[in-house]
Amino acid sequence: MRLSKYFLPILKENPKDAEIVSHRLMARAGMIKQQSAGIYSWLPLGKRVLDKVCDIVREEQNRAGAIEILMPTVQSADLWIESGRYNDYGDEMLRIKDRQDRAMLFGPTNEEMVTDIFRSYVKSYKDLPLNLYHIQWKFRDERRPRFGVMRGREFLMKDAYSFDLDYEASKAAYNRMFVSYLRTFERCGLKSIPMRADTGPIGGSLSHEFIVLAETGESQVFCHRDFEGFAVPPADLNYDDDAAVAGIVEKWTTPFAATDEIMEKEDWARAAWDGLAEEARVSARGIEVGHIFHFGTKYSEPMNAYVQGPDGKQHFVSMGSYGIGPSRLLGAIIEASHDEAGIIWPKSVAPFDVGLINMKPGDTACDAACEKIEAALENAGLDVLYDDTDERAGAKFATADLIGLPLQVIAGPRAVAEGNVEIKVRATGERETLSIEAAINRLAEAR
Amino acid sequence: MRLSKYFLPILKENPKDAEIVSHRLMARAGMIKQQSAGIYSWLPLGKRVLDKVCDIVREEQNRAGAIEILMPTVQSADLWIESGRYNDYGDEMLRIKDRQDRAMLFGPTNEEMVTDIFRSYVKSYKDLPLNLYHIQWKFRDERRPRFGVMRGREFLMKDAYSFDLDYEASKAAYNRMFVSYLRTFERCGLKSIPMRADTGPIGGSLSHEFIVLAETGESQVFCHRDFEGFAVPPADLNYDDDAAVAGIVEKWTTPFAATDEIMEKEDWARAAWDGLAEEARVSARGIEVGHIFHFGTKYSEPMNAYVQGPDGKQHFVSMGSYGIGPSRLLGAIIEASHDEAGIIWPKSVAPFDVGLINMKPGDTACDAACEKIEAALENAGLDVLYDDTDERAGAKFATADLIGLPLQVIAGPRAVAEGNVEIKVRATGERETLSIEAAINRLAEAR
Repeated sequence: MRLSKYFLPILKENPKDAEIVSHRLMARAGMIKQQSAGIYSWLPLGKRVLDKVCDIVREEQNRAGAIEILMPTVQSADLWIESGRYNDYGDEMLRIKDRQDRAMLFGPTNEEMVTDIFRSYVKSYKDLPLNLYHIQWKFRDERRPRFGVMRGREFLMKDAYSFDLDYEASKAAYNRMFVSYLRTFERCGLKSIPMRADTGPIGGSLSHEFIVLAETGESQVFCHRDFEGFAVPPADLNYDDDAAVAGIVEKWTTPFAATDEIMEKEDWARAAWDGLAEEARVSARGIEVGHIFHFGTKYSEPMNAYVQGPDGKQHFVSMGSYGIGPSRLLGAIIEASHDEAGIIWPKSVAPFDVGLINMKPGDTACDAACEKIEAALENAGLDVLYDDTDERAGAKFATADLIGLPLQVIAGPRAVAEGNVEIKVRATGERETLSIEAAINRLAEAR
Repeated sequence: MRLSKYFLPILKENPKDAEIVSHRLMARAGMIKQQSAGIYSWLPLGKRVLDKVCDIVREEQNRAGAIEILMPTVQSADLWIESGRYNDYGDEMLRIKDRQDRAMLFGPTNEEMVTDIFRSYVKSYKDLPLNLYHIQWKFRDERRPRFGVMRGREFLMKDAYSFDLDYEASKAAYNRMFVSYLRTFERCGLKSIPMRADTGPIGGSLSHEFIVLAETGESQVFCHRDFEGFAVPPADLNYDDDAAVAGIVEKWTTPFAATDEIMEKEDWARAAWDGLAEEARVSARGIEVGHIFHFGTKYSEPMNAYVQGPDGKQHFVSMGSYGIGPSRLLGAIIEASHDEAGIIWPKSVAPFDVGLINMKPGDTACDAACEKIEAALENAGLDVLYDDTDERAGAKFATADLIGLPLQVIAGPRAVAEGNVEIKVRATGERETLSIEAAINRLAEAR
């Protein structure tokens, strides 16, 4: 992509209302634009990262056996009256009347609708286990939207819903999602720690939040140092092996871990923390990036979602739900990976793989070198953002650092005259001068 | 994908309210489920096709130089008051009050919001041309939603918006979208014919609808037989060559073409039709799949979207907008390509490439043959839906024909005992018995 033909509106100033670094950097890097309080447009650079995050989420959901669907944003109030949640949700629910004066709402979550889909089609235990997910815009009318896309009103959510015959099977479904979340966040460049959590308006008895450690995190968290050494399961994990999956969950839930919310409310948590040796304690800032719930028959009973079991009897299905906010996750990645100059994207979610900077567009040798590098890298399957604009060098460097592409290639007239370019690694700042051929090979390998 | 682990709820009966064949087939093939009037969930098979259609739309938008963004669904009424359209839109606009009692709405289209994005960042003619598009859910509160996803209330739309310094440049932008639409529909297996159209609530002076011919189409259309021989431009068309692109538009807009709406309203259209030789006349049923508009400064003037020109003066930008409904397009594909037994997907949008039917699951030889074929085809990059269920053969054949995968492989115990399977081409019904190896090779080539 040529920057001269792209739409990358870099801001020099921080937005006044941007309280946290990810919000500031996303606005300055031309990734998002606020349209109303808590409602954002995703500009081209932001959209590219959002797509990459969603692709990782989707791949890991599919790997764990979840099946993708797509439910609408606007829901009928009837379903929520049926489940008994219509009044519980309070002012956060965006209620709508359509032209026929029917009560509708902009979905804040989809337990009711997916249960309706399930009961419409599934009649037998033979069709279980079933886990349906979608990635769709949600709306929660927060009293005080803030932190950019981290706590917006309209936000993207991946929500999965599992249906099983009994508690044991639904616990296995919960475990599969638990493990897929560990993998999802690691692939986004994040180390996540699962922590027991409150269930809030979703309900149920068992719930974990996945917390990413970041100095600028929104809340204080407390955990055992053992987590630092834990390895995330590999891609070829057999998700059909319930015992193996349960073993991973066991391992990741054994050491102490709790949010400040739990520490305040639960005496056991405070006692467990106090019981830890000083050197085992990690107290840090964290950001919630995922939340999973097991709630059994909370929705299936009032909504009459049952299957015929092997015993010939009707059983209300046991359910769980599993949420990741890709827009929020993207913010968390920036909170965890940035410096004074801007964003430092992990390779897996970078909007482009390489930033190619032509220091003197119009100079025949520089143009030829850049075009050669651009073509060779794109041929090798890399996405290149080629800065062919007339900006001065300082501004180009600042933009490249701000938008945080993992690798930069700098083609200046002096180096190019000697057949060379410079490669810069964004994360470390390391620079190296290489021949054009060697630079192409190095970058193609880095893919 | 194993059908035993998939979610493909086939219906035996047509939904009562399904008036048209695409609606009936999508419901019966387990692609969609109605949630409220004109509001649908996309089930796994439907979601896969929708994604394929969106990918084609996206690729052709990018090829023509449009840049993808993503605007939110909920908009502030303020922007629409600014443009003067807030009252024009009438009851079709879904109006919403948020918890602060602010007037919001679920976007039916995005001219206002994208103009707001433009004016926030772009100041100079040097940043033009610019064309921003997104693929996002829209809501139009139709008085009488019907025809399944063809005329839903919540529907997916790809809408692109071009910004140029003057009329001539914006006409070139219009032409690029015109040509990209021809390519988009052809890649979806459809022949589209551009017809002059009314501009309706979008406004402006120049507009074309793209109509696909299908016996079950919603409206009568009239055109010259010349269109039958027109070839769609190739993928390597140079979209930067304004003259070449204009030449293609000229060619495709010269022969007579009009919808019944235009024929009724415009005397010139009736006269032109009457003037055609009998053998040149094609009168057929058609479906609108795209609509493009040039409206100049209709939004840029009231909303103060201008750039500094080369003359140093301020110029309101000249704009156009360009819409394709992927959900509607999907319905049109089915209208144009089905038979008594079900859907016949064009290869480019098929949810899976191959349906693999095991006639006797549990039979060691059949299972081994199917697993070998499944692995080999997936290795070759094909998406396989493997029917490993216990259904009886007749039901499996009916399902395979209903969901319309282009190619079927049938593995029955007698053929497999001789090392053979049968291949069936869905579109023609042709069947051929081949050795397992030969079948794998044939299918891998068909990719």
